[in-house]
Amino acid sequence: MLPDPALSSLRALLGDRVSVAGAVLAEHAQSESLVTGGPPDAVAFPRSTAEVAALAEWSTTHRVPLIGWGAGTSLEGHALALAGGVVVDFRDMAAMLEIRPEDRLVRVQPGITREALNQELRTTGLMFPVDPGANASLGGMAATRASGTTAVRYGTMRDNVQGLTVVLAGGRVIRTGTAAPKSSAGYDLTALFVGSEGTLGLITELTLTLHGQPEAVMTAVAAFPSVAAAVDCVIATMQMGPTPARIEFLDEATVAACNAFSHLTLPLAPQLLVEFHGHPAGLAEDVSRFRALAAEFGASGLDWAEKQEDRTRLWAARHSAYRAILASQPGAKAVVTDTCVPISALAEAVEETRTDIAGSGIPGPILGHVGDGNFHAILLVDPSKPEEAAIAKSLAHRMAERSLRLGGTITGEHGVGFGKLPLMAAEHGEGWQVMGAVKAALDPLNLMNPGKLVPGQP
Amino acid sequence: MLPDPALSSLRALLGDRVSVAGAVLAEHAQSESLVTGGPPDAVAFPRSTAEVAALAEWSTTHRVPLIGWGAGTSLEGHALALAGGVVVDFRDMAAMLEIRPEDRLVRVQPGITREALNQELRTTGLMFPVDPGANASLGGMAATRASGTTAVRYGTMRDNVQGLTVVLAGGRVIRTGTAAPKSSAGYDLTALFVGSEGTLGLITELTLTLHGQPEAVMTAVAAFPSVAAAVDCVIATMQMGPTPARIEFLDEATVAACNAFSHLTLPLAPQLLVEFHGHPAGLAEDVSRFRALAAEFGASGLDWAEKQEDRTRLWAARHSAYRAILASQPGAKAVVTDTCVPISALAEAVEETRTDIAGSGIPGPILGHVGDGNFHAILLVDPSKPEEAAIAKSLAHRMAERSLRLGGTITGEHGVGFGKLPLMAAEHGEGWQVMGAVKAALDPLNLMNPGKLVPGQP
Repeated sequence: MLPDPALSSLRALLGDRVSVAGAVLAEHAQSESLVTGGPPDAVAFPRSTAEVAALAEWSTTHRVPLIGWGAGTSLEGHALALAGGVVVDFRDMAAMLEIRPEDRLVRVQPGITREALNQELRTTGLMFPVDPGANASLGGMAATRASGTTAVRYGTMRDNVQGLTVVLAGGRVIRTGTAAPKSSAGYDLTALFVGSEGTLGLITELTLTLHGQPEAVMTAVAAFPSVAAAVDCVIATMQMGPTPARIEFLDEATVAACNAFSHLTLPLAPQLLVEFHGHPAGLAEDVSRFRALAAEFGASGLDWAEKQEDRTRLWAARHSAYRAILASQPGAKAVVTDTCVPISALAEAVEETRTDIAGSGIPGPILGHVGDGNFHAILLVDPSKPEEAAIAKSLAHRMAERSLRLGGTITGEHGVGFGKLPLMAAEHGEGWQVMGAVKAALDPLNLMNPGKLVPGQP
Repeated sequence: MLPDPALSSLRALLGDRVSVAGAVLAEHAQSESLVTGGPPDAVAFPRSTAEVAALAEWSTTHRVPLIGWGAGTSLEGHALALAGGVVVDFRDMAAMLEIRPEDRLVRVQPGITREALNQELRTTGLMFPVDPGANASLGGMAATRASGTTAVRYGTMRDNVQGLTVVLAGGRVIRTGTAAPKSSAGYDLTALFVGSEGTLGLITELTLTLHGQPEAVMTAVAAFPSVAAAVDCVIATMQMGPTPARIEFLDEATVAACNAFSHLTLPLAPQLLVEFHGHPAGLAEDVSRFRALAAEFGASGLDWAEKQEDRTRLWAARHSAYRAILASQPGAKAVVTDTCVPISALAEAVEETRTDIAGSGIPGPILGHVGDGNFHAILLVDPSKPEEAAIAKSLAHRMAERSLRLGGTITGEHGVGFGKLPLMAAEHGEGWQVMGAVKAALDPLNLMNPGKLVPGQP
């Protein structure tokens, strides 16, 4: 509860676009994951960069934290108010502001979701390819340095954000990047804010890189005799080229869940779901190369979906995998892990993880964007049995440690939030202290999403 | 001149790998550009990260600046000691440390040059594609966020550095990035140090992304009726695809200089030099598309060099363009400008620049990596006529201002150094102060390459 005069001056800024209604606060205390936080003191719905700047000035005057909120799809509690504060919900800042087809750029507000953006772009021949599965907001995706199925070809948010408008603590506004495709003019502030999870400032505008919609698309699903064979096929594909637009791994348990949920009849075996984008001549060669490679690794049932409707069905099933796995055990909650290893260590990482999960007593189907070494286990726990949550947490912790031992990272795409804080020192060592120094320089009062990402948090 | 005990304790660290010999100091006061600085107080030749860390500790103890030195090819005076200090020359840290073909990674020391690295890689089927023309060191390329002819397809140093070892002020050592292809684990420290020009620390090791050597390569040179036609053809090529591996523009004056210097017989007209990389089937389609597009824009003399030796000759001529232009006016010195604009503004930027140069009284051939909107004018001045240097400086200043007006940047790939300091506020506004705050947080005594990049420098 905000004391006066903080609340009254907040209302003076935004009027009825500040809410302290119980239902609104409760809605902004929810998260996709097991991670929970208390409700915020208030939720603000700004409409412009100037209003966000005024909020940041207010925040400094009254020493009240600000926490950004996009679509609420974060898996590590990024948008939760850990110790009160005002959630800044970008619901009313969700417009596409400008499209520049010649420069393959689009300027958007942070609240627009990736599906809404691609809907706006559909007649332009262009697309924004980064696809984390959830219909996340672009501001949230940038703040989390999200990626997903297409990163193997089109890169992550790191590669597809060209510029930002950011409101800093205290209300200063900066613009990073230019409309030119590259620059050597000083520190890469765009890259510093992408992945900063709202701890250095609030993103109020993004300039994003667009890509041409592919002229031709082919999707295949292939069943392999073993997890190792599927993973080795991925490694070989990535090393020999051509680079697929997506290359997704699903283990047997994931396939079973998808079959049941999405009414498919895929063979119950480890599968790769692969998509190539290109122009028709090149694509035919890509496809025939992959076909030969998959056969070498014992693939059967290599079906190519050339028709849009078959492709849509397959990818819809993949995108529903998380819900399908949840539905496979009614009432269960999921702990979604997220590690990313060097491709040479992928088979070892997946196999060790499967063995660890198999011995744990809880189910944990595995799937992932294996083209860039990134995979997830969806650990299912019965919320009425706290011991299962403890098992899941310790499995997740060992996955992260395994990833570090194999030269990888504790999070490929979900970010740190506060769920991964305990692992940051192990990944970065002294580098984590450097992150803390940067944070202290830009937000000395620790008002921007406190309790997340950097060291020394309560 | 370093006073004792600073000098004696420096000698205690590195023995005869510290030099105060006049010739060595003078060599490290040179620069490729008109920019000059006084000689450093000493030059150090460390052999390991530990030795660089000891140097940084020494630097803090004795309050003596450290300035990194790679191959000395910077164009903005990055490696010059503006007010004394010790130049850290990475001559003896130039090894390739590890190659991981499966992960397409290589780990190198900062002093290795790009040509030496590719020589080491030649039998692996892999290559490091970033090519700024000069045979720069990889440490210097990372520090400057360099790019060059191939960035249009393979990206810049921003995209091709996956991790760093950095010695910070005071001697702390951090490792950024992992061997996994992506990560969301906190601030992107790798991106913060790439382009930081030695002002935040000294890079002592790099993990670089490798790419497959292309199976097939085709190079074309095409003459256009006007600069506008050539530039419009670039814009159309970039918009319609396929993306070339290189697409270079040379104006008539550059062509004339290259003809004379490299014994070519290219028609005296604006030219595009284009290269496609791919597998054979895709490449044939790429080539036929570009051929049709170039014809639409009035190209003649569209010659394809399929043979390695013809390609090598053409690209050698392109790489010699800077020397060819210098040789076209014996005794001249060059001011090399470097702006980068949105592709939609490229024709306007090039035309306005040509007009401006034409009215200035000094020659300034134009060439550039136009696929990403980046071009250079090589402004030739007679060193005995100071008024010509003044004309060149004011032309360069107007080019940078023009670039900003058109939505671009003051430097596409050469960096800030101290040559571009006066333009930083115009590009970044308040963002430049943020860079200063980051600098102050990591190097509070301003001992790492002082006088460069950030505000408030003498």
